[in-house]
Amino acid sequence: MSTVRTDNTQHLTPGALPSSMQLNAEGKLKHFLTIEGLPPLLLEEILDRAEQFLNLPNKAQNKAPILRGKTVMNLFFENSTRTRTTFELAAQRLSADVITLDIRNSATSKGESLLDTIRNLAAMHCDMFVVRHQHSGAAHFIARYCPPHISVLNAGDGYHAHPTQAMLDMLTIRQHKSCFQPLKVAIVGDILHSRVARSQIHALTTLCTGEVRVIAPRTLIPAGIEKMGVNVFHKMEQGLEDVDVIIMLRLQKERMQSGLLPSEREYFSLYGLTEARLKLAQSDAIVMHPGPVNRGVEIDSRVADGSQSVILEQVTNGIAIRMAVMAMVMSGQTGEQR
Amino acid sequence: MSTVRTDNTQHLTPGALPSSMQLNAEGKLKHFLTIEGLPPLLLEEILDRAEQFLNLPNKAQNKAPILRGKTVMNLFFENSTRTRTTFELAAQRLSADVITLDIRNSATSKGESLLDTIRNLAAMHCDMFVVRHQHSGAAHFIARYCPPHISVLNAGDGYHAHPTQAMLDMLTIRQHKSCFQPLKVAIVGDILHSRVARSQIHALTTLCTGEVRVIAPRTLIPAGIEKMGVNVFHKMEQGLEDVDVIIMLRLQKERMQSGLLPSEREYFSLYGLTEARLKLAQSDAIVMHPGPVNRGVEIDSRVADGSQSVILEQVTNGIAIRMAVMAMVMSGQTGEQR
Amino acid sequence: MSTVRTDNTQHLTPGALPSSMQLNAEGKLKHFLTIEGLPPLLLEEILDRAEQFLNLPNKAQNKAPILRGKTVMNLFFENSTRTRTTFELAAQRLSADVITLDIRNSATSKGESLLDTIRNLAAMHCDMFVVRHQHSGAAHFIARYCPPHISVLNAGDGYHAHPTQAMLDMLTIRQHKSCFQPLKVAIVGDILHSRVARSQIHALTTLCTGEVRVIAPRTLIPAGIEKMGVNVFHKMEQGLEDVDVIIMLRLQKERMQSGLLPSEREYFSLYGLTEARLKLAQSDAIVMHPGPVNRGVEIDSRVADGSQSVILEQVTNGIAIRMAVMAMVMSGQTGEQR
Repeated sequence: MSTVRTDNTQHLTPGALPSSMQLNAEGKLKHFLTIEGLPPLLLEEILDRAEQFLNLPNKAQNKAPILRGKTVMNLFFENSTRTRTTFELAAQRLSADVITLDIRNSATSKGESLLDTIRNLAAMHCDMFVVRHQHSGAAHFIARYCPPHISVLNAGDGYHAHPTQAMLDMLTIRQHKSCFQPLKVAIVGDILHSRVARSQIHALTTLCTGEVRVIAPRTLIPAGIEKMGVNVFHKMEQGLEDVDVIIMLRLQKERMQSGLLPSEREYFSLYGLTEARLKLAQSDAIVMHPGPVNRGVEIDSRVADGSQSVILEQVTNGIAIRMAVMAMVMSGQTGEQR
Repeated sequence: MSTVRTDNTQHLTPGALPSSMQLNAEGKLKHFLTIEGLPPLLLEEILDRAEQFLNLPNKAQNKAPILRGKTVMNLFFENSTRTRTTFELAAQRLSADVITLDIRNSATSKGESLLDTIRNLAAMHCDMFVVRHQHSGAAHFIARYCPPHISVLNAGDGYHAHPTQAMLDMLTIRQHKSCFQPLKVAIVGDILHSRVARSQIHALTTLCTGEVRVIAPRTLIPAGIEKMGVNVFHKMEQGLEDVDVIIMLRLQKERMQSGLLPSEREYFSLYGLTEARLKLAQSDAIVMHPGPVNRGVEIDSRVADGSQSVILEQVTNGIAIRMAVMAMVMSGQTGEQR
Repeated sequence: MSTVRTDNTQHLTPGALPSSMQLNAEGKLKHFLTIEGLPPLLLEEILDRAEQFLNLPNKAQNKAPILRGKTVMNLFFENSTRTRTTFELAAQRLSADVITLDIRNSATSKGESLLDTIRNLAAMHCDMFVVRHQHSGAAHFIARYCPPHISVLNAGDGYHAHPTQAMLDMLTIRQHKSCFQPLKVAIVGDILHSRVARSQIHALTTLCTGEVRVIAPRTLIPAGIEKMGVNVFHKMEQGLEDVDVIIMLRLQKERMQSGLLPSEREYFSLYGLTEARLKLAQSDAIVMHPGPVNRGVEIDSRVADGSQSVILEQVTNGIAIRMAVMAMVMSGQTGEQR
């Protein structure tokens, strides 16, 4: 991070982003920036906590007072209605005050450095920043420079990480398969540009998943990805064989034009998840997708809406995971908070 | 609705939108999509409930806990600051959590079908959708395809219906005239393109209003409107004679250029509500307008601000009506809610 | 105000804006529009109240129920993410319901006069308008024409006033210097176009500050400013001598092109606050800036981040001042409120 220029976020380079800064002296979660480096027990704790929120005793009331009087600021430097909404809902259901800043269009950001923006917002006495940013490392950068009483949650940074998405995927897998050790999991699509895939791989390997596969054309596989503990496949028919979980990635259509990808039709013919291909997996395999789905591009509608699809369960779990992480980082703020 | 293509809202065609789907098995309101087909007693119940909210015992506190722990999502596919604000206020005063999505600009809607958007938002465990959409039938469509624990309120769909607007108008009339049976009510303006007029006509005829008139140039009257139980007039001087209530519609200025309408000046000379024309009505006639008013186009400023104008009372009543409908559809959600 | 055309805010001319309309019959604050004409004791009361909010006994909860059930409407005719956010936070922490309207883009404002917009919003039963407007006098205008149960807070109007900004500056000065009488305070920058400077000068002179100086090129000093009780300097080296407080103004870069200002580089060389120039002031002088800071234009980064800078304290104090003023105007609403 030493190369980060504090006056220009264009040049944020994540380099080695330390996971240790996520934990406080007692090993409790203080920020939630990346899955990489987190202990398995902590991931399990997040999943357990989320399960509790899914089963609140008084469903009619649906609210927990855990963050009452706390202020959560959603800092969206990159637009994402869906992710923003789930964080807003999670914060509201924990009784927090929520402020959402669409910083792309904000005068706050004009001519002001990221560091000045963050320092100013921090001086308004908020307790948590939820950060979405187009540059890798932005959430780490903010966590490093904001005052100690503020927790930072990474809601997606560049190609780097999207840890709450990965954890909601883990929750969905655990609900259906209970145990990660014997599982074969395949991640299919544009691995190269996917922060989601990176975080999923870290989560799956941390939780000791039996085998993690990535399936993609050569142009969309980062060099050296085997070091992350995954097996690489270029053919769907081979990669899907006997898997228990299929995670489809969303195809960013704007990449189609860049030459990295063939046409939508050709992509679907090679890497689209059809009913026929789904039969290659275990008969009780589940199908996942972070949404929004490009029907007929990465997945056939009959599969997306079929009995093996758990895509909408992922959405529901997303709220619970975000509530869990918010609750945990706030209790990871020990002692005097201001 | 069988012709609705689930992947493209451009082609939503309302056809015969069944009102029965608004009521649960016990005849209670579950969705609020259209006035058409609702029993008169249910409309009266909405008005009575709204009156209660206008007279909350503890005005200083101004809040009712009826929707505490519930999440209301405002889905505005078409912009309307004023309507959006009244629904937000109504939900806040019922202690709900409120999320407003400006879906026009949302990535959620990009390349994603309306059905997928709705299913995803529903999976976030919300309790109510308030829907504003430029296409007729959108709220019905959403009500049909969203999970049973979610209620849908129509906040205006295409040329079809705007039922909460009609009900706030009924409340305003009842406050001034107490009884609908003996009343003559005239609706003046662009009937053809007005969802407000359609809903008003249904509400007025359901409540057994003595006579409902529409006044407009021939080009702005839908064919066969007499079947809705209204008398058609093309001259203000004839249509306003002896009426007890005058409802002016807002002129959409963008229609001026289409050739359907004469110039603003000519329109005002033919259909503008002036003090002279107002004298043709009953001396205690009230003047209504859904706002925002185009002063000097559909109405003279002296009339809009005059002693017979109840335009601002309509705004106040709008909050109470929306609170009433929200409270009623939530209690129309029986048994296990999730 | 008699020249204000109610149908066109382009021509709002403040003229003599009476401060008396800010106080109710008992001399309590009812609106907060300008510092000019307010009694010193009332300013002290605002500062004392803000101090209380900075020291809430139960910091973990951080909320006061003072505005529970009240609705605060933020009416931002001019964009300002930072100011808007602080008002939203202040209202939330007082437990109010908050609605923020970005009226620039609102259909509400299209073809509708400011007066109609305000009357409509008032009819929605809100309790407070926070108004930001590009035209001087807008907040006064709204306060004059809105119903008596609504309080208006000026969040910046044209070149006229920004009273909450001035009060947060006074709070910051009082925290560091305790007493205003012996102080020498210099305000540096574009005085001519600065509502902040006007409000600061009124606040400082009302609080009997020993000497108030303004430092700027001749083109950026309004004619006759001496009548406000300030001493004018055109050279930094002279103006900063022995001052206890330095208030830098933000330079609006768009004015650079207008010919009123030299280049950024030249401006900095003449009026930028450097470490060398800071040494001319008292050794314990504090450095203030309303933000966002243009580093290297009006102030050197080493000064902005240096030990004498209290810029971030100003931000924190901004929330407390806004809470104080909101609480006071609500208690200035006596008797029946609706």
